Amino acid sequence: MQGHVLYNIVPKMTDTTNKKERAHEETAKPELELTESVVANDNNNDDDDEVLENKMENQDEPTHVTTNLLHSINVVEAHKHKDYGGAKGHDEDEQAKKVKQKRQRFHVDHLKDLFENEMDAGYVPYNETNAEVVKRFCSKMHEDDQPFYIVNLSHFARQYYQWIHYLARVKPFFAVKSNPSAFIIKILGHIGAGFDCASVDELDLVLSTCSNIDCGKRIIYAHPCKPISHMKYFRDKGVEMTVVDNEDELHKLKEHWPNAKVLVRLKTNDSHSKSPFSTKFGANECEIRRLLTLAKQLDIHLVGCSFHVGSRCYDINVYKEALEFARKIFDIVHDEEYGFQFSIIDIGGGFTGHNWDKPSFPEVAQSIHEMINKLFPEKKGYQLMAEPGRYFSSGDTILVCSIIARRLHNKEYSSKEEISEAQKEKTKEKALIESAENIYYINDGIYGTFNAIVFDHKVFIVHYLTKSNDKQIPEQYKSVIFGPTCDSIDCIAHSIDLPLLNVGDRLWFPDVGSYTNASASSFNGFKTKKYFFIWRN
Amino acid sequence: MQGHVLYNIVPKMTDTTNKKERAHEETAKPELELTESVVANDNNNDDDDEVLENKMENQDEPTHVTTNLLHSINVVEAHKHKDYGGAKGHDEDEQAKKVKQKRQRFHVDHLKDLFENEMDAGYVPYNETNAEVVKRFCSKMHEDDQPFYIVNLSHFARQYYQWIHYLARVKPFFAVKSNPSAFIIKILGHIGAGFDCASVDELDLVLSTCSNIDCGKRIIYAHPCKPISHMKYFRDKGVEMTVVDNEDELHKLKEHWPNAKVLVRLKTNDSHSKSPFSTKFGANECEIRRLLTLAKQLDIHLVGCSFHVGSRCYDINVYKEALEFARKIFDIVHDEEYGFQFSIIDIGGGFTGHNWDKPSFPEVAQSIHEMINKLFPEKKGYQLMAEPGRYFSSGDTILVCSIIARRLHNKEYSSKEEISEAQKEKTKEKALIESAENIYYINDGIYGTFNAIVFDHKVFIVHYLTKSNDKQIPEQYKSVIFGPTCDSIDCIAHSIDLPLLNVGDRLWFPDVGSYTNASASSFNGFKTKKYFFIWRN
Repeated sequence: MQGHVLYNIVPKMTDTTNKKERAHEETAKPELELTESVVANDNNNDDDDEVLENKMENQDEPTHVTTNLLHSINVVEAHKHKDYGGAKGHDEDEQAKKVKQKRQRFHVDHLKDLFENEMDAGYVPYNETNAEVVKRFCSKMHEDDQPFYIVNLSHFARQYYQWIHYLARVKPFFAVKSNPSAFIIKILGHIGAGFDCASVDELDLVLSTCSNIDCGKRIIYAHPCKPISHMKYFRDKGVEMTVVDNEDELHKLKEHWPNAKVLVRLKTNDSHSKSPFSTKFGANECEIRRLLTLAKQLDIHLVGCSFHVGSRCYDINVYKEALEFARKIFDIVHDEEYGFQFSIIDIGGGFTGHNWDKPSFPEVAQSIHEMINKLFPEKKGYQLMAEPGRYFSSGDTILVCSIIARRLHNKEYSSKEEISEAQKEKTKEKALIESAENIYYINDGIYGTFNAIVFDHKVFIVHYLTKSNDKQIPEQYKSVIFGPTCDSIDCIAHSIDLPLLNVGDRLWFPDVGSYTNASASSFNGFKTKKYFFIWRN
Repeated sequence: MQGHVLYNIVPKMTDTTNKKERAHEETAKPELELTESVVANDNNNDDDDEVLENKMENQDEPTHVTTNLLHSINVVEAHKHKDYGGAKGHDEDEQAKKVKQKRQRFHVDHLKDLFENEMDAGYVPYNETNAEVVKRFCSKMHEDDQPFYIVNLSHFARQYYQWIHYLARVKPFFAVKSNPSAFIIKILGHIGAGFDCASVDELDLVLSTCSNIDCGKRIIYAHPCKPISHMKYFRDKGVEMTVVDNEDELHKLKEHWPNAKVLVRLKTNDSHSKSPFSTKFGANECEIRRLLTLAKQLDIHLVGCSFHVGSRCYDINVYKEALEFARKIFDIVHDEEYGFQFSIIDIGGGFTGHNWDKPSFPEVAQSIHEMINKLFPEKKGYQLMAEPGRYFSSGDTILVCSIIARRLHNKEYSSKEEISEAQKEKTKEKALIESAENIYYINDGIYGTFNAIVFDHKVFIVHYLTKSNDKQIPEQYKSVIFGPTCDSIDCIAHSIDLPLLNVGDRLWFPDVGSYTNASASSFNGFKTKKYFFIWRN
């Protein structure tokens, strides 16, 4: 890299279809069906959406466009990407704008001191695009080629205020696992959220970040299967509430945490969620009856129900079913005189974190609000809580990587082996890589932030920044993006259209806050550790 | 867990086939074909093999038997496990014994002080079985339920001496990535090995563990695609040698590390390796000619060739082909007068680390030894080196987990949903879990040590220890093993025969040293951090 060269944003055109079709694709949300394959084609940057639309009016000007990321394990051919959500593109784009406007109402000026003085975040006007922000930080990095995150701290606060606005009765307990970063915990702790901790390490993180937090009121140990050592630790730190879904757990509680307030975790229908949980956790009615009987015998203090509809739930009816199931259990407890005073309902998580989600959070929240008012009316003293993780952490975090190496004209050098039909299926990945024109190596990969492709069905979107001053729309080449490790499984994209990029150019990925760095390893000595903070109002 | 209760080893019978068939299966090595599915059925514990055989003679007595682990992502039905290597079982068992006997020749008494005083390792006689060692450490842990590793430190030294014995001309540079643990680096550094580092963090680990190491002679930066910042760091620390496989890399070297000694990395046939690398790294003849020309123009100091046949290579011919290719390049460099003095050949890795591997290491080493003597005779002054990782790190490391929770009689509570034929394929995992009798939750999982199932095609073997005093062979139940996190993808085994186990009983897994903790994350606050060291002679 050459000194202080400012990066130019050079446009990327994915295909030659007409304007309208392109606009649809470029703003489409990720596919909602649970498939083994992922195709990226969404857009996180609210502002970019507008820029995009304006730019589309004038084809002479360059545009920022998202592209498709195909993962090496779950492969879908590039031409298939039109199948995913394309038809709804414009609709979602409109929705994203609406939701964004609503979110902007939740001002965060009063956190200026926290952001700027305590957390060293720079102020950025709301109308500055992500691309502009990325460009600025790339310039600031000069010759430092390490990857970094840019985090908009006000996002977390804004999400909290949006939650309180639409779901005032439901107290959010941030699921720390989605992004166990002190900066999120600090902000959410500061403005009053609770925390869902699932292990000693998560509890310690919250305790060390939020001094003097009232563990009894603001922390729930929301894991139904607890190591005894962890159980004792939570008890000793003053946490009061936990969940249970099997009989052994009641015996463990009796012996090690007899005064815990316990929620029974219900098994729900999670078939509409991207990451279902009900094979692993939750009790059905038959099991719950046994739990109620045993808890009564053991004198365990059951206080209500919890459920989790699975991560990223796109069907409001699933919450309805789960709440009705909880109501049924409340009635059973009352009518059959088990002797417990059930008053708490923990509606878990499943809330997505993006403006383009359909149904949007305001819509989901509105429905839940109506349902709980009907099933668990406020005047009867029911208390509601939830465990949102992704809702808070996924948006407004950008990963910026450098191209650390490249292999050009790859096709010329590909092995000329004859591949039999029978072998073709097995070697599809290899064939895709060998038939690509150029290969780029960047400094975060499948063992790092992109582990979410493997573990979280995550769809990534790639943008690029180049030092080239060429304002023309450059020629596109079929390209491969590899991660930095020595392992060939560390392939982020098989077959993606990119212009000719140079070592030192940047690729950036919006929306990488949840289940990314949280489950990244340091394999081969690579892990993205650098953070820049901003706040927007 | 109740105080100092000693664990009993209770036998596990996998099926009802006759003795001979069982013996074959139980000692079979993992399947060699590159498939997406994994079925465990191997046996690391040399001593256990013998115990097994003895026990098999007397069916009244309990036996230790390995079982099958099916991963949630790559599913193979349990009945299929006989397809994998079963026929060769007895053969491999004999081989394992032979190789073990050979390895025992390499005594490590002279490292007693290092092991016992510097590294706090307890001595264990060579004929004490792994099961006995595990039992002892479980008793030592008392009520502490955290997972832990037991590492036999003498293994690393013994592997080194075995290497030197069979491949005296080839200097091993331990591939740090396979297990970046200070204890391995300390021992291998102490007895004279070199190190293959691929990043700043790996180099720093070696430097901080081996004080005053001669970086120029004992470290190679063996990554063909280097971030410029890392390149400068290696240069500044005195590392002298690296590899290259693309033209950009030569330009980067020219600018930032002009005096490096550079090996050209060749593209090899890796179709017989479990983890192939040649789609990601390596240059073919056409590329190499360009690299030679460009390196000459740039005055880069090329000194030889390197290659990597892919991780776990089971075909000796692949080394032969690669060595012949290297010979060809040496001849081209000489005959076409590029002006380089090629003298170094780095034969990379690909060496497996288990006694039962066929071909065994002594066999592979013998062949390579003959080939290099023919192609690169000693008297001509050729220097040979290699980058073994798994060869050193995979064996003699045991993971011991606790059962932290369980769900009994799972089948009774399974959802009674009707599943259509079309859905069956999609819901196979769910169906397997729901049809299991019992579910166990242990405290390491897919985000931890078992990430190797996802990323490294690793086959795990499970043993168990229970506090029960029942000496009878207990009834078996179809069981599921889940990891400790909140995520349902964190499933280690779908459908495995286990007796009724209790919370606090242990599951242990031999042979988990390579590409396990190296690429584990701390997701949800769970990571195995505790180590016990032993040494055997």
